[in-house]
Amino acid sequence: MKNFKIFFFLLITSLTFGQDIEGEIIDLTHTFSEESVYWVTAKEFQLEEVAKGNTGNGYYYSANNFSTAEHGGTHIDAPIHFAENKQTVDQIPLENLIGTGVKIDVSAKALKNPDYLISIEDLKNWESEHSEIPQQSIILLYTGYGKYYPDAKKYLGTDERGPDAVKKLHFPGLSPEAANWLIKNRNIKAVGLDTASIDYGQSTNFATHVALMTQNVPAFENVANLEKLPATGFQVIALPMKIKGGSGGPLRIIAIR
Amino acid sequence: MKNFKIFFFLLITSLTFGQDIEGEIIDLTHTFSEESVYWVTAKEFQLEEVAKGNTGNGYYYSANNFSTAEHGGTHIDAPIHFAENKQTVDQIPLENLIGTGVKIDVSAKALKNPDYLISIEDLKNWESEHSEIPQQSIILLYTGYGKYYPDAKKYLGTDERGPDAVKKLHFPGLSPEAANWLIKNRNIKAVGLDTASIDYGQSTNFATHVALMTQNVPAFENVANLEKLPATGFQVIALPMKIKGGSGGPLRIIAIR
Repeated sequence: MKNFKIFFFLLITSLTFGQDIEGEIIDLTHTFSEESVYWVTAKEFQLEEVAKGNTGNGYYYSANNFSTAEHGGTHIDAPIHFAENKQTVDQIPLENLIGTGVKIDVSAKALKNPDYLISIEDLKNWESEHSEIPQQSIILLYTGYGKYYPDAKKYLGTDERGPDAVKKLHFPGLSPEAANWLIKNRNIKAVGLDTASIDYGQSTNFATHVALMTQNVPAFENVANLEKLPATGFQVIALPMKIKGGSGGPLRIIAIR
Repeated sequence: MKNFKIFFFLLITSLTFGQDIEGEIIDLTHTFSEESVYWVTAKEFQLEEVAKGNTGNGYYYSANNFSTAEHGGTHIDAPIHFAENKQTVDQIPLENLIGTGVKIDVSAKALKNPDYLISIEDLKNWESEHSEIPQQSIILLYTGYGKYYPDAKKYLGTDERGPDAVKKLHFPGLSPEAANWLIKNRNIKAVGLDTASIDYGQSTNFATHVALMTQNVPAFENVANLEKLPATGFQVIALPMKIKGGSGGPLRIIAIR
């Protein structure tokens, strides 16, 4: 009888208040600070203190202003970043930013070769080891370079800044062929990785960005803590700052397992 | 036999890829633009176009910089905003930003009185109508003022800006007594509302902020679309920009029902 009561109490509570989002929460986001990694030509993050301390009116008060490029630190590339008339960051459907996560570990190859391009074969190898990538997944590519963040020399291949530094960028990325394969065959919602760009550092035509974004598939860049995720068995929630007409912006991305 | 196969397929799929986050997603976030509502003394949101158009290298490219106060538009107040040595925005545990939501509708009273203070009685009336507020809930206070956003005159009580406009602010808020009651008796995770501040516009000592934040309870301000939520039966996910040492910042807040 007592068990029945507990059962009905729990049933009514769950019907009334909705099903809990349960599980371990893993933050996949680097903090924003003056150390955050930005593209070598982009405006870096700056915090300006406005107030900090006792006000003399009986309370403490702290507040800041900040300025930043949309694309730096852990951030999202909205489709319009590389594809005209496609979604701006505020137009991306939330359904495309929340879903089943898949982690593809290419760190063994990528850590040996900073110009490594993740291939269709890497995706097929993952499927052979695990199972077919579910339709409408969010793909997280683990290159291993996240451990170097925010050391620009190791993470980007150069700690120089400015237009002349672009050709010195060396870090792995997703090949355009593999991006197209994921779109056509697995209908992915989004893709992210632990480097500064979904195209590898030596790209000059940004063909992976173009392939994804012409299909309204956003990319998450400078994702943190991918070493803490299993290959499967987690959900991704990626919520960007809602900038009207933005080409991207700061992203808070988490996994729940 | 066929049903068995489907059952086992679904069982294995759910064990492998984790339980889906299911339900309708409701965005509780206003877009950031030059129209966004800011405190009358705070630096407003500014977007600066860096690139927009065909690059001549075979691809389209759009990118912007922006600057803003931490506290404006849909944003979070981290505990350190009004309480020394309490959590900065990057230190708030994600567990406190995700959980069972409760919407308390005080719009009938608040829309008649822009200086309305949400009382302990309002909370007890809600409990009489529904059920006890679950421990560790996220409380969303629906004043009805969200419908005026971003019309500063209607939303804030004044469209003037600068220090002299502070005393002209008129909008509802949570009383310090009700804040303390929620902390002590219901152990809430966080509280949000559809006005510019958790303290009402006429506050001079910000006692509700102080009450919440000395207990490490963050506040969500300028929350959108609360009219779309039921009183219970939803989960809240509130992910702020992860600013190192920040007193708050842009917030993307959603509900799943």
